[in-house]
Amino acid sequence: MNLLAMINNGGHHLAAWQHPKGQGGAGLNIQTYAHIAQIAEKGLLDAVFVADVVALWGQDLEALTRTSRGEHYEPLTLLSYLAGVTQHIGLIATATTSYNEPYHIARKFASLDHLSGGRAGWNVVTSVVGAEARNFGRDTHLLHNERYNRAEEFVDVVRKLWQSWEDGAVVKDAKNSRYFIPEKVKNIHHKGKHFAVEGPLNISRTPQGEPVLVQAGASESGKQLAARIAEIIFSPHDEIKAAQHYYHDIKTMASQFGRAKESIRILPGITPVVGKTRQEAEDFFEQLQNLIDPVLGRRLLADTLGDDIDLSHDDIDGPLPDIPIGNKGSRRDFAVALAKEKQLSIRQLYLHLAARNAIVGTAEDIADRFEEWYDSYAADGFNLFFTHDPGGIEDFVELVVPELQKRGRFKKHYSGNTLRSHFGFDVPSPLHA
Amino acid sequence: MNLLAMINNGGHHLAAWQHPKGQGGAGLNIQTYAHIAQIAEKGLLDAVFVADVVALWGQDLEALTRTSRGEHYEPLTLLSYLAGVTQHIGLIATATTSYNEPYHIARKFASLDHLSGGRAGWNVVTSVVGAEARNFGRDTHLLHNERYNRAEEFVDVVRKLWQSWEDGAVVKDAKNSRYFIPEKVKNIHHKGKHFAVEGPLNISRTPQGEPVLVQAGASESGKQLAARIAEIIFSPHDEIKAAQHYYHDIKTMASQFGRAKESIRILPGITPVVGKTRQEAEDFFEQLQNLIDPVLGRRLLADTLGDDIDLSHDDIDGPLPDIPIGNKGSRRDFAVALAKEKQLSIRQLYLHLAARNAIVGTAEDIADRFEEWYDSYAADGFNLFFTHDPGGIEDFVELVVPELQKRGRFKKHYSGNTLRSHFGFDVPSPLHA
Repeated sequence: MNLLAMINNGGHHLAAWQHPKGQGGAGLNIQTYAHIAQIAEKGLLDAVFVADVVALWGQDLEALTRTSRGEHYEPLTLLSYLAGVTQHIGLIATATTSYNEPYHIARKFASLDHLSGGRAGWNVVTSVVGAEARNFGRDTHLLHNERYNRAEEFVDVVRKLWQSWEDGAVVKDAKNSRYFIPEKVKNIHHKGKHFAVEGPLNISRTPQGEPVLVQAGASESGKQLAARIAEIIFSPHDEIKAAQHYYHDIKTMASQFGRAKESIRILPGITPVVGKTRQEAEDFFEQLQNLIDPVLGRRLLADTLGDDIDLSHDDIDGPLPDIPIGNKGSRRDFAVALAKEKQLSIRQLYLHLAARNAIVGTAEDIADRFEEWYDSYAADGFNLFFTHDPGGIEDFVELVVPELQKRGRFKKHYSGNTLRSHFGFDVPSPLHA
Repeated sequence: MNLLAMINNGGHHLAAWQHPKGQGGAGLNIQTYAHIAQIAEKGLLDAVFVADVVALWGQDLEALTRTSRGEHYEPLTLLSYLAGVTQHIGLIATATTSYNEPYHIARKFASLDHLSGGRAGWNVVTSVVGAEARNFGRDTHLLHNERYNRAEEFVDVVRKLWQSWEDGAVVKDAKNSRYFIPEKVKNIHHKGKHFAVEGPLNISRTPQGEPVLVQAGASESGKQLAARIAEIIFSPHDEIKAAQHYYHDIKTMASQFGRAKESIRILPGITPVVGKTRQEAEDFFEQLQNLIDPVLGRRLLADTLGDDIDLSHDDIDGPLPDIPIGNKGSRRDFAVALAKEKQLSIRQLYLHLAARNAIVGTAEDIADRFEEWYDSYAADGFNLFFTHDPGGIEDFVELVVPELQKRGRFKKHYSGNTLRSHFGFDVPSPLHA
């Protein structure tokens, strides 16, 4: 079973920073981040992962100020720092293909891979937050298909650059004045619809051959991209049947690209809230939930239902009013159906949304759920969103990791020092067809 | 006197990696870089500095392979790593304004400033190596003036983003659900000729207020930019009279922008080659010079004289043939005049070019030269290009630093932990007029 730890400012639960255990969020205290990464490594986790948006995480400052998400480290600088205070754990940074250039991205991840001794991973995203466009000279993002089209080409260029220095090109033969073998360093001469890049890269083939590619395909084009290029795939599902379908779909699509099933791992995101007793876990989680400010709660609802739905005059403890639906599979229809089925008030509905992905219970409860998902082909492991940092990961490493080890579900030591080695991934073959 | 140490793969001397003391160049051994930064910090240097080109450092692979410059770390990832293994020393990374976006640059340097506790500096360059253009979809760079025009606007946008979170915006008031004060975080709404950026940044005001701006203005537009925005300026001169003129020019131009003379420091680049005796230093330097491969030497000459001058059929130990001149102040005219004046052979000429900036001698010799330049308003300190790493900086810290301290020319301890504090720089006032 593979396990990643997502790191962000203050933990995943939006109100965690307000809880005494949340210590005000990590903020930008770099020592806290170092501690989190070291605890994750002590717990033998495969990687720490940093999500990203190249803008504020929300434009509604009144809601955003109720969270600790208003500021966050840039992932590549943060993970380069953390490379220096850890030895084994993988380092997965998010970077968008919509507002970057492939040469920079190829180079920065190659640099991180070299300086960490082979622990770099790139989570490929195409940007969805509207404000990102406006930080890069555009009013709106490229259209969905165009974004994915650009992403496909972007990743191909990056991989060509990573391959532009052959293995063994660097020889450092002082006697014959050859630092590298010129024939083993080649221009890539890429000319495509979105990019023209001559190459070669200005850094040699990396310790992992290539950094590990990570993606979270949800839409059809997203799944296509994931199935073609990603090695670690974040599944968007928190319901086992949907997760099984997704798992099956992706692995089938990947095999159509000629890829072996073992060469990709599918990891749903999950928030483990562990206590020594079930009661302790539930009490703590309820405290967190109660800290969610109604201004923030209403923003969560607006983000789900759409900004055209005005609930500002509705009683927060009253029922959800009638809301037009009809876009099956949309987040709005899902939320409206849920509120109706469970007879939730407005407050209860946003609390429910905030608790998405959570498993609240003992180490045994959490290990049971992990096993159930793993054994039924819903997951190859999990991307862990801890409620609060560093307490959430400390509790997990103390309580859940030993339980998984006892059940023979998790490793007892690192078998290598690269991210690839933790996943048993081979160096990828040249560009997938 | 302020002192910086330039770090690159293997030291500044092109053949150092081939000398036993050069240990094959640092290559990508991150432990060597950590050691260099720690030695620099032990020697109380103000900062380590990483130069950059977003391409190979030369397109002539046969010549490039004779050096250790064929591969190098990306500066921001490298310095983020080094932030974790040092406590005091400044960290200056180069980034080009021609092939980047201001939002990324503002953010990455802010991130480095936060994670290093206020030690970040940005060396602003506009890119001159032709191959850089071809890695970013262009055949050639923008024209010189256009590049500088873009650079001016780029830096202004970056500074606006750094200022988009007011001091004290982050309050982490858990009781009142206020992580930050919304009124203290503002969009920048920049719309200019080259960029449209809404902002705000997604990370708060940095420990230094703003990272330190560094520039190496040589052309008129370069000097204008330096005088307007830079706090540390790399002087291109290795001859004292020219350096004095440059110093005077820049400080005068800066005062025309309303800037105090103390708010900028001018640092020429210099290669100190120190020995316990003058003979030891000279012998070592001669060994290095003798290691320069003629293929590389001829490339240095071609880079100086122009690729239209074909010397491939001329005897390397014979005189330089007649070469058309007439572009006063050009590198070609300078080299031709030098060869004539000193009656240099082709080999002697390229060795002379490779030895540019070098001071070879005892600690006393080097301290004498530093004092001479410092006292005659040619320099406020130096950007040190060590011949080989880590030996060059080890020798300097062991021999030259104590000599400078003995003479009362260099500090005996760090008086603060930020790059600004090492230079005595105030937090800059809002954008210079």
